[in-house]
Amino acid sequence: MQIGMIGLGRMGNNMAERLRSGGHKVVGYDISPDSNRDVDSLQALVDALEAPRVIWVMVPAGKPLDSTITQLSNLLGNGDLIIDGGNTRFTEDQEHAKTLSAKGIGLVDVGTSNGIWGRENGYALMVGGSDENVARIQPILHTLKPEGDFGLVHAGGTGAGHYAKMVHNGIEYGMMQALAEGYAVLEASDFIKDADDVVQSWRKGSVIQSWLLDLLSNALHKDPHLSHIAGKADETGETKWMIGDALELGIPTPAITAALYARQSSQIQDPATMKVVSALRNEFGGHSIAKD
Amino acid sequence: MQIGMIGLGRMGNNMAERLRSGGHKVVGYDISPDSNRDVDSLQALVDALEAPRVIWVMVPAGKPLDSTITQLSNLLGNGDLIIDGGNTRFTEDQEHAKTLSAKGIGLVDVGTSNGIWGRENGYALMVGGSDENVARIQPILHTLKPEGDFGLVHAGGTGAGHYAKMVHNGIEYGMMQALAEGYAVLEASDFIKDADDVVQSWRKGSVIQSWLLDLLSNALHKDPHLSHIAGKADETGETKWMIGDALELGIPTPAITAALYARQSSQIQDPATMKVVSALRNEFGGHSIAKD
Amino acid sequence: MQIGMIGLGRMGNNMAERLRSGGHKVVGYDISPDSNRDVDSLQALVDALEAPRVIWVMVPAGKPLDSTITQLSNLLGNGDLIIDGGNTRFTEDQEHAKTLSAKGIGLVDVGTSNGIWGRENGYALMVGGSDENVARIQPILHTLKPEGDFGLVHAGGTGAGHYAKMVHNGIEYGMMQALAEGYAVLEASDFIKDADDVVQSWRKGSVIQSWLLDLLSNALHKDPHLSHIAGKADETGETKWMIGDALELGIPTPAITAALYARQSSQIQDPATMKVVSALRNEFGGHSIAKD
Amino acid sequence: MQIGMIGLGRMGNNMAERLRSGGHKVVGYDISPDSNRDVDSLQALVDALEAPRVIWVMVPAGKPLDSTITQLSNLLGNGDLIIDGGNTRFTEDQEHAKTLSAKGIGLVDVGTSNGIWGRENGYALMVGGSDENVARIQPILHTLKPEGDFGLVHAGGTGAGHYAKMVHNGIEYGMMQALAEGYAVLEASDFIKDADDVVQSWRKGSVIQSWLLDLLSNALHKDPHLSHIAGKADETGETKWMIGDALELGIPTPAITAALYARQSSQIQDPATMKVVSALRNEFGGHSIAKD
Repeated sequence: MQIGMIGLGRMGNNMAERLRSGGHKVVGYDISPDSNRDVDSLQALVDALEAPRVIWVMVPAGKPLDSTITQLSNLLGNGDLIIDGGNTRFTEDQEHAKTLSAKGIGLVDVGTSNGIWGRENGYALMVGGSDENVARIQPILHTLKPEGDFGLVHAGGTGAGHYAKMVHNGIEYGMMQALAEGYAVLEASDFIKDADDVVQSWRKGSVIQSWLLDLLSNALHKDPHLSHIAGKADETGETKWMIGDALELGIPTPAITAALYARQSSQIQDPATMKVVSALRNEFGGHSIAKD
Repeated sequence: MQIGMIGLGRMGNNMAERLRSGGHKVVGYDISPDSNRDVDSLQALVDALEAPRVIWVMVPAGKPLDSTITQLSNLLGNGDLIIDGGNTRFTEDQEHAKTLSAKGIGLVDVGTSNGIWGRENGYALMVGGSDENVARIQPILHTLKPEGDFGLVHAGGTGAGHYAKMVHNGIEYGMMQALAEGYAVLEASDFIKDADDVVQSWRKGSVIQSWLLDLLSNALHKDPHLSHIAGKADETGETKWMIGDALELGIPTPAITAALYARQSSQIQDPATMKVVSALRNEFGGHSIAKD
Repeated sequence: MQIGMIGLGRMGNNMAERLRSGGHKVVGYDISPDSNRDVDSLQALVDALEAPRVIWVMVPAGKPLDSTITQLSNLLGNGDLIIDGGNTRFTEDQEHAKTLSAKGIGLVDVGTSNGIWGRENGYALMVGGSDENVARIQPILHTLKPEGDFGLVHAGGTGAGHYAKMVHNGIEYGMMQALAEGYAVLEASDFIKDADDVVQSWRKGSVIQSWLLDLLSNALHKDPHLSHIAGKADETGETKWMIGDALELGIPTPAITAALYARQSSQIQDPATMKVVSALRNEFGGHSIAKD
Repeated sequence: MQIGMIGLGRMGNNMAERLRSGGHKVVGYDISPDSNRDVDSLQALVDALEAPRVIWVMVPAGKPLDSTITQLSNLLGNGDLIIDGGNTRFTEDQEHAKTLSAKGIGLVDVGTSNGIWGRENGYALMVGGSDENVARIQPILHTLKPEGDFGLVHAGGTGAGHYAKMVHNGIEYGMMQALAEGYAVLEASDFIKDADDVVQSWRKGSVIQSWLLDLLSNALHKDPHLSHIAGKADETGETKWMIGDALELGIPTPAITAALYARQSSQIQDPATMKVVSALRNEFGGHSIAKD
């Protein structure tokens, strides 16, 4: 089918290619003239598509996305449909849906996983929206998903797709942290000759065999003991939001929270918490404290 | 090659079968007359094997294992070799090795993973011991491991095999907890129509695709929403030991620790911690506290 | 000075009494006819006070408070001032301030601590609002606070009082949990003859001497080993909000988060997390799982 | 009464002074000639005391203590008594008691709190040993403890004193971390004008009023916002041991564990855990990773 694609960064571009390989007609737009865009404005994109239009938006959450939604709400009309495939917070999907439905425009939110591997292997897709709207974009979803029985779920109404993806990312953080802690212990222990060898061996026959373990094995192959990688990691929002919602639901998520905190800590120089602890030790114990 | 197998429970029996299918001659012994043992005493087992003997011990750690090692140290002689394939604490391997080496008996410790799936698919094997002893049992290890490049590592000297397995189990706990927390949030949220469907969809194309996710999917297929399973989980020691050793190494393992604590908490009725919190709330806030 | 007091539950009533003892003229109102209210409607309260009025609102956060604020915004006028002394989320103070300032009504938010002990010993007060508004209510604040140098702070603009109280409560949760964990370990260990005696001894000369320790000592005195208290504890919102804001600020709060999760866990029967862990153990290890 | 004191560092020296002020005759020894020791060898110390002797040992745990105990076991005789007042691991008390009892020498283990404040205000003392031995040193204990009803407990048999002190330190870590997290959030939030002012205000009327809060207030007074203190903190062993024992007891201690992990993390440059997380993010998402 025909589809517009807004945002031709790494993810959007790969998706557009997979859709074209699948026989769909994709009209691409990006704000950057250096992208391989087909049209040079949102207006041109809208004009290039036959109504009722379907447009996939692959734009960073927050201001860039809000601005795109606002502009599209003015350019599109009754019966058109926007698919938000980015990492939007589920609470914002509700806002966007309200804005758009006032003009008769539909919204489907899609959480997508698999990063740079999706172009070839397909993307795990978690979809939120009305049955009608989700049915309408099945051809698109089926081209993007991996082959086989899995990789696509209609998770619920508006926001459910991003909600499911948010939880997926929380699990991802927890799994990565578990692998990381295990590796760090192997590296620190005198018992283990070579931590990398142990990790490699786990790729088959172990209970923890997983794609993440395979990726760690790849990384260790390229850079033994990860000696060229800095001990810092960013976080991208979804897991923070997940923990925030779990707090409200009353569901403790201690392992996933530990994973987020480890990343946040790695970004903090000279943490105020440890200043307090150090100052207190000095006050009651006369323990020396390193001055800046 | 020829090998004795002591302990014919689920794990030991499966391993004996896999070894026999691989062309080895296995003489099995178990304390229970109801097992399918080949001989009815340790002495008979030793007599049935040609020196220098190799005996795989698959007996619960702690007293049963200690007793077996002590008896074997009296029955075996110079050049014989014991393989401890159970879930022994790595610190105890050192003790056992000392006892045995005084008689010229070797020890190789092997951590094994894959549970009930190993019979058919092979076991991930983590091996500790001297190069010479580990070389000697290669035919056995190659039959037990999965096909392909992975699933076997000589992790280091005595204790290293159980150490690596201990870390493997720590990671396993962390990954399971991450999956569990994600599932619990999906179940609790009004956004998600059916948590089970979302989990199924992740089996392909997602970053968290893994054997554990496949197993969860199987379990959900058999028992939707796990409604027939009690919300309690045991722990089996290795992860506790891993955290203990990480504490000494100065390596924080917060996600894995969270996983262990969640299991321990699930076993405690009426925890003293919450009694204290509740009593304090009553003292300063007059908050009512439920009496037993 | 003259002040209205809305909400005559335990906290509001105690405060009204402390204010009267301090020489202020308090007009009290509560929705319940069984309270010792002076007037029987908000309108009557407003009529009983001379303009420009000052009204202390001590009403549960959420709907009761929102409704009270809305009604007062219609009854009060330019120059009047509302003090919200409840446990309101700091983000809602902003909303309320906006509603009220449209009518020329001021808002000061005050976090109050010390629970049932404040009547006699004074309340720790954390205050948010404009310099002008906070200055205006100094006589009230000075009567309510404890004697001496401490117990009162103008923490910042609108919302800062409740923000500071929220953080106070987070610390409180963390301290209580630390005491609780220590007590639970003492109770469980064979080394300790009587955990209660040990706790009592810490009241002087120890680094952990604190009001909470004194309260625990009182509770243990009344109910040795807390044998009549159930091992469950509620949470009241502030700590959850604090963790939520810390997540956004990128400041890890692992000990306080652990304290909240322990309380939340104590409220959950048959947790879905442990169902998942148990189901997985069964899938890969054939471990038996208790059915409901 | 008469007592020997071995180890005249800050703690030992202060205790000797407090004992002398209390009318006891103290003979001090330290390995360092620069200390204000009364005798210059262990032999001389033993000779200077009348049998049956009582000797307080205030020496670092581990090798220095083990060596001192071994030497004393050869110099002392039947009926003599050693008091170990240091931060010894409770498991080692058992070893020492065995060594000493073979010679008829008694051992009492005493955990002491209050650091540099004890000289003047007294030390909280947690005592382990037989009723008879503990009775014998009551005059010493009563001089060292604070005035009043609290500050001294006979916690149980050998090791119980150090066990109780270990738990005390675990609670101390948890309380300090709770304060630290709260302070860090106040510092990071735009809502709060001055975090230091808020902390000061809590010293009276709040639920968290405590000696540690007073000490933090002192520290902030000397060094506003702790700007001259590095964000790092050491750990001294006891809390690590407490968590280790709690793991074996099956009692989760998540807040105290979080406190320890925060300190351990602050000591690690370029943690392997975050290298793994960063490497994985690069593998699946193409996220850039900072090279060393």
